[in-house]
Amino acid sequence: MDLPSPQFPDLNGFSSSYGNSLMKYLTLFIILTMSAKECLFANPTNGSPSTGGIVEVSQFGVKPDTGADVTEGVRAALDYCRTSKAAKLIFAPGRYDFWPDRAAEKYLFISNNDDGLKRIGFSLVGQAGLQIDGGGAELLFHGPMVPFLIEGARDIRIENLKVDFTRPFHSEGKVLAVSPEAVDVDIPEEFPFEIWNGVIVFTGGEKAPEESIRGRKPTMVKPVGTALAFDPKRREPAYMLSDKGGLEHGVPAEKLGDRRVRLHLKEVKANVGDVLAFGAARRDYPGFVISDSSDIRLDRVTLHHSGGMGIIAQRSGNLFLDHVRITPSGTRIISTTADATHFTNCFGKLELRDCLFENQLDDATNIHGLYARIDEIFAPNRFVARLVHPQQAGVQFLKSGVRLELTHGPSLETFGEVTAESVEPINKELAVVTTRTPLPKGVVVGDSVADADANTADVLIQNCVIRNNRARGILLGSRGKIRIEGNQFHTPGSAILFEGDARHWFEQAGVRDVTIHGNTFDNCNFGVWGNACISVGSGIDKEFRKSSRYNRNILIEDNLFRTFDTGPLVKIYSVSGLTFRRNRLEKSTAYPPRPDAGSEWFIQSDSDGIKIEEPTAERPPEK
Amino acid sequence: MDLPSPQFPDLNGFSSSYGNSLMKYLTLFIILTMSAKECLFANPTNGSPSTGGIVEVSQFGVKPDTGADVTEGVRAALDYCRTSKAAKLIFAPGRYDFWPDRAAEKYLFISNNDDGLKRIGFSLVGQAGLQIDGGGAELLFHGPMVPFLIEGARDIRIENLKVDFTRPFHSEGKVLAVSPEAVDVDIPEEFPFEIWNGVIVFTGGEKAPEESIRGRKPTMVKPVGTALAFDPKRREPAYMLSDKGGLEHGVPAEKLGDRRVRLHLKEVKANVGDVLAFGAARRDYPGFVISDSSDIRLDRVTLHHSGGMGIIAQRSGNLFLDHVRITPSGTRIISTTADATHFTNCFGKLELRDCLFENQLDDATNIHGLYARIDEIFAPNRFVARLVHPQQAGVQFLKSGVRLELTHGPSLETFGEVTAESVEPINKELAVVTTRTPLPKGVVVGDSVADADANTADVLIQNCVIRNNRARGILLGSRGKIRIEGNQFHTPGSAILFEGDARHWFEQAGVRDVTIHGNTFDNCNFGVWGNACISVGSGIDKEFRKSSRYNRNILIEDNLFRTFDTGPLVKIYSVSGLTFRRNRLEKSTAYPPRPDAGSEWFIQSDSDGIKIEEPTAERPPEK
Repeated sequence: MDLPSPQFPDLNGFSSSYGNSLMKYLTLFIILTMSAKECLFANPTNGSPSTGGIVEVSQFGVKPDTGADVTEGVRAALDYCRTSKAAKLIFAPGRYDFWPDRAAEKYLFISNNDDGLKRIGFSLVGQAGLQIDGGGAELLFHGPMVPFLIEGARDIRIENLKVDFTRPFHSEGKVLAVSPEAVDVDIPEEFPFEIWNGVIVFTGGEKAPEESIRGRKPTMVKPVGTALAFDPKRREPAYMLSDKGGLEHGVPAEKLGDRRVRLHLKEVKANVGDVLAFGAARRDYPGFVISDSSDIRLDRVTLHHSGGMGIIAQRSGNLFLDHVRITPSGTRIISTTADATHFTNCFGKLELRDCLFENQLDDATNIHGLYARIDEIFAPNRFVARLVHPQQAGVQFLKSGVRLELTHGPSLETFGEVTAESVEPINKELAVVTTRTPLPKGVVVGDSVADADANTADVLIQNCVIRNNRARGILLGSRGKIRIEGNQFHTPGSAILFEGDARHWFEQAGVRDVTIHGNTFDNCNFGVWGNACISVGSGIDKEFRKSSRYNRNILIEDNLFRTFDTGPLVKIYSVSGLTFRRNRLEKSTAYPPRPDAGSEWFIQSDSDGIKIEEPTAERPPEK
Repeated sequence: MDLPSPQFPDLNGFSSSYGNSLMKYLTLFIILTMSAKECLFANPTNGSPSTGGIVEVSQFGVKPDTGADVTEGVRAALDYCRTSKAAKLIFAPGRYDFWPDRAAEKYLFISNNDDGLKRIGFSLVGQAGLQIDGGGAELLFHGPMVPFLIEGARDIRIENLKVDFTRPFHSEGKVLAVSPEAVDVDIPEEFPFEIWNGVIVFTGGEKAPEESIRGRKPTMVKPVGTALAFDPKRREPAYMLSDKGGLEHGVPAEKLGDRRVRLHLKEVKANVGDVLAFGAARRDYPGFVISDSSDIRLDRVTLHHSGGMGIIAQRSGNLFLDHVRITPSGTRIISTTADATHFTNCFGKLELRDCLFENQLDDATNIHGLYARIDEIFAPNRFVARLVHPQQAGVQFLKSGVRLELTHGPSLETFGEVTAESVEPINKELAVVTTRTPLPKGVVVGDSVADADANTADVLIQNCVIRNNRARGILLGSRGKIRIEGNQFHTPGSAILFEGDARHWFEQAGVRDVTIHGNTFDNCNFGVWGNACISVGSGIDKEFRKSSRYNRNILIEDNLFRTFDTGPLVKIYSVSGLTFRRNRLEKSTAYPPRPDAGSEWFIQSDSDGIKIEEPTAERPPEK
């Protein structure tokens, strides 16, 4: 018998249908559906624009405020824009609804988020030279989707729109009582839940249609993994309380009546009246995924929520965020369930201006590269490289021709560079790398490699407001020129952190030129995520800090530090060159002093070229 | 700025590296590693065999009983066999260990199992004309892997080997006490567990290496979803007890000392002394996956365990299982966590001879096609087809040129056939189908399509022993000629079931020619999964049973029915042509009579051409 010709023989064929060829199919689909859909598609009612023309989504049947699923129409409009080389796609003001059911689908490996097969709202794959003008539209997503995927694209501008989800990926509850053994919460109707087998299960709140598969729970679940108390008056993480993790395997619970529930969870840190925010167990659905793209602009974009990071860019360059707002909608206290923004192995320019990042469940931004660990060395020029962090697996940066930086794991000191001759993947974690010249002397298994020419973006973060989120403000690791200017920080952890390590998170960092100028650090460090406003947290073993100079040339000037205790403003180690001058210090009574604040305002070790001026005392403004 | 050339731009590129080109890379990998690995690979030590030659895995450094990971060596050997067109790959007797860490990887859509990115033990993708002689070897898998993937392959013979897993995907515990509110179990060391936040979590038992990611539980979890009591003396599901589902979101638990645990799970059906089998929450890792392949033989293969079905074949033909044994190892009571075997849209010949299928957590086999539901009709020859069952999503059978059978959902009656002109996928569930001619009159949204030329295998199941598993014996749905002969059935549900429906499971069935000859039905129906030995369970709405004749031409002759009560031997509806003759009935006292057994030995409705002879009474053999 002949071999049957496989219909969808593997995800290769499958993916090519969904990825590269998707739009071809969609075009066909649109043409096919014309008669049924009143010829709204394919030939827009206003006639075909020539290259550089303007397209309205209404030409594809996409109207605001209908409550109907516009996913197919938007996809058709985007496809038409690509094939017709339209310059602009316009939305009329109003609300547009998206469901995952008929959305395109792609397997995505997204740095510091979870990989998987995802449904996509706006699929801008291979798109070039398009401006999407939302006209103030609100895009409302009704299920698990990545709202925007920008991949292999260039010269894209997305402006003047809002993104939100009907049922967020996280949940919230008001704390009614706390004991060492349990916490009682009152859960708003916005966060549906059920008790199954004595365990709380947050749900989508909508039962699946009747024809659901027999024997399957028809309810969509929203698994949570963490709990963190927020102060509802200040709308920020409660003073000095840490989050509890490990909830993803279930939490015993009992109903107390109405929407009140007792969670049998030990040693939850919370005050009566706090809002307990339950973080999503996974980072599956970031808001905007930008991958292998360049010249991408988001302007006046508001992202109220996403099930993962807000805006995550990887292997991309020339990224501009202007008046981007990450902020919760309605009465919710949480915006995105992870970092507001995140930039991995980016290059060119990276500018964040006049943005608002608040109430997300992790840092406001983190700009870094990736380290892969050397797992086995076969020969002086051949080794196995491993992407160790599970959320970096598949985010491959190793390819033929890439110049590799070799880094000593415990010290983060660089051995030197070699160029990859060939890279052969084994699976999403492992690849065999052959280099043109032998590895530098001293490199052993356990050391790491990074792309020496990625993570080089010149960074500008200007006039942004960063506040009320879990953890830190901005994590700076780009090797390019960095300017942090005119921002307002009010973060429970460090406002600015220099991290990077090659043994835990595998985030390549080590700044070369940073200016921190004219910012206000407004009562930061009211939480447990670091105790200095500006801090080094790089993963350098203590024994190597004396010699390592991972971060270099940091200028901190003309900033205002408003502080509520005597804790450190700056805490550094293994830095070469740091100047702290013309900064002002203002005392406040915003919070009680931290128990372990200490009394030193500048803490340093194992550094050189450090020039510090005592900050000048400033009187708080009259109330 | 130029667009960066994406390194792994999408899973398309990714998958092509892993799939089609994997072996190319591996070959290179092998050559690269030669110096380090003492030239064991690529050029086998015994010299290169010519086409049709014999290769020993030992030539690739794969030796038994070393405890080392042989995954890479086996992959190299298979690659070498393919490129050199070797006829046979030989293992020396002994134990071989496989870990997922360095295994190849592929995204698989596997019928009636869960889709995902899987690590593969033996990747026989595109392989042709190879015999793998295990020499009695035991292949031991140490983590989540699909032991064998046979895809786009032909003329493959795998013989004389055993497959097992160190830590199974399910868990077991001895029942110490049962109340309406809780069940106490003693969990053998073979099934590691922990209590996290008051919830039981079954684990892999091995902590991850020290360099694990900070903040992540380093322990591998083995999520369970069901609990079913087994009688440890009879080693079979406990008499008339049903399983409890919905455990996948967590079960509150407390330690009682040693390995004794109280599970706060209401109304668990179990007797003190039973073994409670906790079924895996997902079907991610079937044992043998056969996809789009033909002429595949498994001979003297023992599969002790898999995390999903044992042997699952889809869109494949000419499949021969000879002396295949699905049976638990050691003191475990469970073998595979789902069906022992399963055949979807298969064709040609399908033969199971002298096999043993026991103690798996679902049926011994199920031979069926797939229905896709018509979700929207754009035009007389254009519609959207949906794969509704979540474990059929991506198992696409629709392609250009396929002859489609149109089926009325509620009655399973066929409207007629049309041929697909083009099929354009939207996502893993949906595709737009254009047909060459209009759909038959009467077809509406909610009706279904199947591949009219698939699910046509001529089936022979001969001299097999089928016993002690959860649920039913064999589910027959192939449209080809079926012969069931000389088998021993001892199943808690129906031994032979004619199922199929287009609204719940979406399994196309409806037999055309079945002979059930010379089998022994030995005290079947001691459980809750059906109350007749041979039964129709097709999903035909009652109002349509009068006209529907979904199953046809069934001959039941010369069988022995050993029964412990007066319940039905045969129960049918909507059948055209059934003859029951020369069968014998033997009374036993193996179990108490079922409460609802009734007193009719043959129950029929809405059928024609039914010829029945009363079975002859037979005295039980002298003890």
